[in-house]
Amino acid sequence: MTASTVQIPGPIDPPARLLMGPGPISAYPSVLRAMSAPLVGQYDPFMTRTMTETQQLYRAVWNTANDATVLVDGTSRAGIEAAIVSLVRPGDRVLVPVFGRFGLLLAEIAERAQAEVHTIETAWGQVFTPAAIEEAIVRVRPTLLALVQGDTSTTMNQPLDEIGAICAKHGVLFYTDATASLGGNAFEADAWGLDAATAGLQKCLGGPSGSAPITLSDRAVEVIRSRRRIEAGIREEGDPDAPDFVRSNYFDLGMILDYWGPRRLNHHTEATSMLYGARECARVLLLEGRDAVIARHERAGRAMLAGVRALGLSVFGDVAHKMNNVVAVEIPEGVPGDEARAALLTDFGIEIGTSFGPLHGRVWRIGTMGYNARQDAVLTTLAALEAVLRRYRVALPVAGGVDAAADVYRAG
Amino acid sequence: MTASTVQIPGPIDPPARLLMGPGPISAYPSVLRAMSAPLVGQYDPFMTRTMTETQQLYRAVWNTANDATVLVDGTSRAGIEAAIVSLVRPGDRVLVPVFGRFGLLLAEIAERAQAEVHTIETAWGQVFTPAAIEEAIVRVRPTLLALVQGDTSTTMNQPLDEIGAICAKHGVLFYTDATASLGGNAFEADAWGLDAATAGLQKCLGGPSGSAPITLSDRAVEVIRSRRRIEAGIREEGDPDAPDFVRSNYFDLGMILDYWGPRRLNHHTEATSMLYGARECARVLLLEGRDAVIARHERAGRAMLAGVRALGLSVFGDVAHKMNNVVAVEIPEGVPGDEARAALLTDFGIEIGTSFGPLHGRVWRIGTMGYNARQDAVLTTLAALEAVLRRYRVALPVAGGVDAAADVYRAG
Repeated sequence: MTASTVQIPGPIDPPARLLMGPGPISAYPSVLRAMSAPLVGQYDPFMTRTMTETQQLYRAVWNTANDATVLVDGTSRAGIEAAIVSLVRPGDRVLVPVFGRFGLLLAEIAERAQAEVHTIETAWGQVFTPAAIEEAIVRVRPTLLALVQGDTSTTMNQPLDEIGAICAKHGVLFYTDATASLGGNAFEADAWGLDAATAGLQKCLGGPSGSAPITLSDRAVEVIRSRRRIEAGIREEGDPDAPDFVRSNYFDLGMILDYWGPRRLNHHTEATSMLYGARECARVLLLEGRDAVIARHERAGRAMLAGVRALGLSVFGDVAHKMNNVVAVEIPEGVPGDEARAALLTDFGIEIGTSFGPLHGRVWRIGTMGYNARQDAVLTTLAALEAVLRRYRVALPVAGGVDAAADVYRAG
Repeated sequence: MTASTVQIPGPIDPPARLLMGPGPISAYPSVLRAMSAPLVGQYDPFMTRTMTETQQLYRAVWNTANDATVLVDGTSRAGIEAAIVSLVRPGDRVLVPVFGRFGLLLAEIAERAQAEVHTIETAWGQVFTPAAIEEAIVRVRPTLLALVQGDTSTTMNQPLDEIGAICAKHGVLFYTDATASLGGNAFEADAWGLDAATAGLQKCLGGPSGSAPITLSDRAVEVIRSRRRIEAGIREEGDPDAPDFVRSNYFDLGMILDYWGPRRLNHHTEATSMLYGARECARVLLLEGRDAVIARHERAGRAMLAGVRALGLSVFGDVAHKMNNVVAVEIPEGVPGDEARAALLTDFGIEIGTSFGPLHGRVWRIGTMGYNARQDAVLTTLAALEAVLRRYRVALPVAGGVDAAADVYRAG
């Protein structure tokens, strides 16, 4: 391929899509508008003010007083890796309770960071009791507990409210990956005793993938600061240079905090458009009201659940612990799952999700998150799903799904 | 800060800025428009087609036949770290010729990756001869040569055309960081024998920071494949699990290539809006023509150089090896550099750059890149700079800078 032989396509022109999968989902229109705002320089007063504003907005989203509340420039797993490599020294013990694919991811990232990783497991579709986690903490004596809040692979929402006190009691740092849950389910960084939490924009926050909000407690910042090293090229006489520095430059939260902090020490060049988008995600959430947005997700989730059940479909997992924003629906006998999903996409422009690992081919995952946690999106999806299922001669009550979901909205 | 006490600002509304620093610079308007296109799902046929198109476009930008031509989801230094941690095993020797801050960054990143790092240095403002690099290769016998092409800290453009043959002769992998140079200066990935090259969008490519184009030769891919490990959670029976796997999950190019390749193995969730932006950056470059864009940068750089010299200002470094797209101008005696820059920004909406390390307080860096490698941007900047310098009673020929630059454009 050379410059003279490449075929140059037209401007980007995506098809109309209603994204009702486990994420990414359709962004809020105002977030898309924010993405196209003109750029400013890295140290423009407008830029630094925008960074500071964004920190304030995310403190409210996380419900925290943590000064160290910033964005990592990358997708949600960039935030996860930044948290883990900055908090964990090689050889440190990390405990990961695994209840789905993303627990395996936390273990994987900690293992690559040369931690001694211990996992406990529960069946997919279940969550852990605080007692099970405490038992493992006592046994493993980890430096860090890394626990997913909402695992989209199973749709489960691990209760976190009692875990912080357990970690504090045993002197364990408490990190959670809230990528799939933040904004659509209760989250209390301070009240729940979190030391670190990370997320992404592409789920309930209603933005594009590519920016990872993170918040860190003072205790976490202390660990990070103890490993502080300022990179050659901008290091000055007397600057710290810890021997157990973080084995990544890009994910060294010490330098990322110096960049966001009053010293504004150059590190990466902040991804300006993603910053604008992240700011807008938090802004629309707070304008509507944090509790109101969670309630909207709760209602959309309840309506979708009622709808798929009224269609006679079974729901996977412990529904009492399901995230508000996604449901795993068993694919009915005789329906080719991927073909039916493709029909929904091609004929209706509606995307629902496939699944990973043991659930692959067994369940679809249907999301109701961010901008799409709306009555019209729920009813449209159920109507289209019903039409597609009918093609495969699944016996269904006519309009049962739509009616049941509409009832939830009518009841308020 | 809680949800109830946060002050919610208005929608993002950046001030008008003409960004004439060393980057980030003002994005092409069509790139900003692309950033706000609606999202699609991660495996939507439109998404995978857009990824494939973007790979084809970047092959033409890099001038390479490398199949492994993709984006890393992060800023330009994410691309650098991905290249280094994926190509270098702990203990491997890495040679970094340092001629500015970004050489120090490559050394820093390689050091964090636990490589045995050897540097050679030349004075800031100079570049290396091929002989000096070969001498060091023979002495150090590195696995990888990591060499910046354009170092914005000094404005120098290291000639690379003879280096690939030297590396091939000695069995050394050849990596270059072309962040600051790609699109505005000659670059020939294949003809120059590069094994890996990375960039960012925020310089001559005319987009926002946050996506890092990367291209890898077959030889580089072979090294990466030999370290292949597929993460738990999506690993299947018989999948590779090399003991010397990459010590980062996010930057494991083996997994990133599997995600972009025909297997489309889930890794991160591609940053859709950044992908749209990256695609558009390459598209506008190729529509105008790769050589035409480089020529436009060459002319704008020549005009800016003539302009600042006609204002009586001295230029830092070996001008014969200056990048087309940035010039370092000595701050005249008696002019407070940061105050004058602030006046340009506040009164004229024009940003020029400060500098790092030994040049801090000594030079300004003025860029002419991407969308802003234009006659009107060059002349406007020179007119404003003259007006600001006059405030500090610098003796200047009236309109000399503008005239000299305009002459360059008139001469063609």
